[in-house]
Amino acid sequence: MISVDQALQNVLNSVQNFGVEEVPFLKSLGRILKEPVLADRDFPPFNRVAMDGIAIDYTAFKKGQRSFNIEGIQAAGSAQITLQNTANCIEVMTGAVLPKNVNTVIRYEDVTIENGIATLHIDTIKEAQNIHTKGKDGKVGALLIKENTLISAAEIGVFASVGASFVKVAKQPKVLIVSTGDELVGVAEVPLAYQIRKSNVFTLVSLLEKIHIVSDTAHITDNKPLLKSKIAGYLKEYDVLLFSGAVSKGKFDFLPEIFEELNVEKRFHKVAQRPGKPFWFGSAAYFCVNEQNVYENEKENNKKNTIVFGFPGNPISTFVNCLVYFYPWYYKSMGMEIKEETAILGEDVFFKPNLMYFLQVKIASENGNLVAFPIKGNGSGDLASLVKTDAFILLPDDRTEFKKGAFFPIIRYRSV
Amino acid sequence: MISVDQALQNVLNSVQNFGVEEVPFLKSLGRILKEPVLADRDFPPFNRVAMDGIAIDYTAFKKGQRSFNIEGIQAAGSAQITLQNTANCIEVMTGAVLPKNVNTVIRYEDVTIENGIATLHIDTIKEAQNIHTKGKDGKVGALLIKENTLISAAEIGVFASVGASFVKVAKQPKVLIVSTGDELVGVAEVPLAYQIRKSNVFTLVSLLEKIHIVSDTAHITDNKPLLKSKIAGYLKEYDVLLFSGAVSKGKFDFLPEIFEELNVEKRFHKVAQRPGKPFWFGSAAYFCVNEQNVYENEKENNKKNTIVFGFPGNPISTFVNCLVYFYPWYYKSMGMEIKEETAILGEDVFFKPNLMYFLQVKIASENGNLVAFPIKGNGSGDLASLVKTDAFILLPDDRTEFKKGAFFPIIRYRSV
Repeated sequence: MISVDQALQNVLNSVQNFGVEEVPFLKSLGRILKEPVLADRDFPPFNRVAMDGIAIDYTAFKKGQRSFNIEGIQAAGSAQITLQNTANCIEVMTGAVLPKNVNTVIRYEDVTIENGIATLHIDTIKEAQNIHTKGKDGKVGALLIKENTLISAAEIGVFASVGASFVKVAKQPKVLIVSTGDELVGVAEVPLAYQIRKSNVFTLVSLLEKIHIVSDTAHITDNKPLLKSKIAGYLKEYDVLLFSGAVSKGKFDFLPEIFEELNVEKRFHKVAQRPGKPFWFGSAAYFCVNEQNVYENEKENNKKNTIVFGFPGNPISTFVNCLVYFYPWYYKSMGMEIKEETAILGEDVFFKPNLMYFLQVKIASENGNLVAFPIKGNGSGDLASLVKTDAFILLPDDRTEFKKGAFFPIIRYRSV
Repeated sequence: MISVDQALQNVLNSVQNFGVEEVPFLKSLGRILKEPVLADRDFPPFNRVAMDGIAIDYTAFKKGQRSFNIEGIQAAGSAQITLQNTANCIEVMTGAVLPKNVNTVIRYEDVTIENGIATLHIDTIKEAQNIHTKGKDGKVGALLIKENTLISAAEIGVFASVGASFVKVAKQPKVLIVSTGDELVGVAEVPLAYQIRKSNVFTLVSLLEKIHIVSDTAHITDNKPLLKSKIAGYLKEYDVLLFSGAVSKGKFDFLPEIFEELNVEKRFHKVAQRPGKPFWFGSAAYFCVNEQNVYENEKENNKKNTIVFGFPGNPISTFVNCLVYFYPWYYKSMGMEIKEETAILGEDVFFKPNLMYFLQVKIASENGNLVAFPIKGNGSGDLASLVKTDAFILLPDDRTEFKKGAFFPIIRYRSV
């Protein structure tokens, strides 16, 4: 049995590049940018008035002048006008071009205007004040957003500013989520005494929706020939298959043998962790056999890899494995950096098994700390316990006592 | 000029209830639940086998028996079978109903099976082990999810489990985002020397998309009669109007006077903060005048309030005001609790003006702390600086020195 670190390394060694697509900039929120975004002109593109008020030539002020005839108005969105007499002033609006022959802006609050004359009622001003100088935020050609940035509202605003009406983003993998298990019935059905409703598949759909992946779903009954023929087709069609269930020691846990028969290379099976231990992970190489992009095993041509995540079927096992393995695999495949977050244990924890313990916690923000309070569920089958918690804290297998006040990595699935 | 706390209180006093709608459960991610979700049956609904292995009557083991004839198999999804002879065993699969006349499960790892006989190779087992008892996670009728919960993947899984194929969620407000400013041109256009492209409106669209609000947008030129007639229509049609620009002291900042003329009650104008000081906030009461839900000012009937957020037009001002005022207004309107997050300043900050300082910071997770590192932008016009930061830290106006190591509230717009 391998460790969580080894398993994660193995998963991260299987990252893939799914290429790039161009989307309208307003559809790119939450996607990963695949081109650098540069300033198309200086920012600001002109000496920009930063306060509503009057603009003067500072030399006149320096000579002691405090009253200025108003020569005109410079509105935002109007072509630049020129101060004709440098003893006069021009009324200027925030966002306007600074008129010619002026170099200092005094805000309305510091001026009284009567009969076309503006009189200052302050005696200290700075030359060039209240002007947002051309190019101050960035020169034309400056790098504004790096490639591989996760696009937030801030990036959307910059795209708009530089006229990037379409942007290049990483293509999403084509993912199929497969549930197995004859005990499962649909959500709208009334289960018999020994049946339960499907839930993992929808939890996974939602975890993927969170990262803007639209996934397909399928359910296959515990029938080996059927499972095999369906999976053979899915392996050719999809980039990633996420399974929930049928990877443990049960008589009907057919997946590991089917994967072997279908030439899916087992990268590992079972990880020293709780919950989620029977996790099966592998990949299959496929080669394009015709121009319609039909893929077959072991044929020479344009190659693709299908990645197979076989998550154990217990709800918490599926949930935590998606966060611990699939998310980092996805982010790294997209070219993103993965950052670690840590939190401080809010109480002592004792855990004896020689396994990494993914403990469910409620996160609180206290004086700039993140504090993780363990919430005891009833084991990996207790889906409802996920509603009470925000994150998993990762307690390593090298000790059995975890002291209140010590910090460990966390994986959040809910914000504070 | 009022303080940020006073302004926020005022905004929160204008929260509204937009009613409830029913949506398919898989479309409810990110929405706010408006009904309690109860267990429709016990969870688990039967004594559930929690390990693949064999099930025995513990009494036989206690009497010293270590080998058991296998009488049958209990698969997941099959009706409960019965152990006929309590000296025998039944093979059982994870997720199956526990057969009748057995009460203890021993996993395959601790058993050798040969010629239809299972022999234990361990000598210590616990009565009732490896069984997830009926009702252990929750009895039928138990509250699984509280009303007013923000729906994450965890809640989606529980909806599926209890058969909630449709769920009641808070209706979203109908929001229009209006940009003004004659200097603005479209994203796909090439601006003239004194023009810039629209960006705030798209930043706001994206900030609202983050909280699952689909908004409309409009642009109006700086022409007072046109502004007034358009806004008169929008006030009747929408629940919320978000403006960007035209609320300061400029000659063409017509909005405050137009709002007054249209009977929009000014709740406040200007807040002691930087950036975003000229923020205008108000509301207008409308009354339904016919059965087509056409609303007019000051008519008696079914009432609605239109909330008006007049954000200053500088990019950072609009951005921060949306986070500081609109987000909490939205969450409280939806019935959600608002939690505060804090971070520790990573370096000394000095800020003299008697204003709350919304300082842009980069957040790092260090040993369970959140540390906020200030990033200096070039003022409220510097949209590109938002790309370099993750959050705003809220430095109060009661002092001028903020020491490294002290903690303050933060508002994050990007995860670590």
